[in-house]
Amino acid sequence: MKFELEQAVEILERTPSVLNQLLIDLSNDWVLTNEGTDSWSPFDIVGHLIHGEETDWLPRAKIIMEQGEAHAFEKFDRFAQFEKSRGKSLHELLETFGLLRQRNLAELKTLNLTPEQLGKRGKHPELGEVTLGQLLATWVVHDLSHLSQMTRVMCQQYEEAVGAWKEYLPILKK
Amino acid sequence: MKFELEQAVEILERTPSVLNQLLIDLSNDWVLTNEGTDSWSPFDIVGHLIHGEETDWLPRAKIIMEQGEAHAFEKFDRFAQFEKSRGKSLHELLETFGLLRQRNLAELKTLNLTPEQLGKRGKHPELGEVTLGQLLATWVVHDLSHLSQMTRVMCQQYEEAVGAWKEYLPILKK
Repeated sequence: MKFELEQAVEILERTPSVLNQLLIDLSNDWVLTNEGTDSWSPFDIVGHLIHGEETDWLPRAKIIMEQGEAHAFEKFDRFAQFEKSRGKSLHELLETFGLLRQRNLAELKTLNLTPEQLGKRGKHPELGEVTLGQLLATWVVHDLSHLSQMTRVMCQQYEEAVGAWKEYLPILKK
Repeated sequence: MKFELEQAVEILERTPSVLNQLLIDLSNDWVLTNEGTDSWSPFDIVGHLIHGEETDWLPRAKIIMEQGEAHAFEKFDRFAQFEKSRGKSLHELLETFGLLRQRNLAELKTLNLTPEQLGKRGKHPELGEVTLGQLLATWVVHDLSHLSQMTRVMCQQYEEAVGAWKEYLPILKK
């Protein structure tokens, strides 16, 4: 599938409501349990998505637009959520994520990106040359992959409860 | 996590709205593309969930309640959706799934299952002895695992579009 800004935005704009439908008012057992040592719970993942809105996607898009390859992005802290989400409720996190995403997509729209601009190059501190279009595609895959991870983590909580059916559930054997 | 009927229902009752939020009005490129040979698109997966509502979960629960181990379940056809969904729109499928799920959960509620009844045994045609509680836990994991699969399938569509970032996206390397 070729990258098209409009199709990318279709996903980006619905992630907050998908997360709300999936997580709001769920028992803490579903929301706060991870897959064991150092893995992430749904609560942790929402915090991680918030940190991405604040420091990764749109800020990096603006660096590419304004400075191109002259300025490498800051490194992204993949563990910031553990400190930043402390003491907050899931409800607060979901609300924050929804507002940040809405603001970032509104700002993206004002950039009025052309197909040529999507090819504009930036510099990733480790991966080297990347383009604005690749950054935006990664934003989309990042959302979807964390939805996939989150629902997998929730599956694991019933690993024992399914009994013999585990045999038919490859997701429980990972 | 120990199986608790109430917590299981929390997931089962929200799956239709999660699917609606994720899929309604998405471009066909997102909805109809699979991961290659014999794999399933989001459209196929919704059809598969419908077939489960019609022939698997609640019908099997009733067999356990009424006949226990005396009557093995019918085999479940994992590919029925390819024929049954033909010519239908995603919108129709989502609506059908939502109605069937609502009806099945209403019927489940009327069974007023006690913790003792959740231990009641049934006979799976291949897996052998299973319990009603295990069947209901599997219903939940089945929902979540297909949500996980669906979002993974959608990720794959941007495998090329993300460029060098693929390195950081383990979901694209499966």
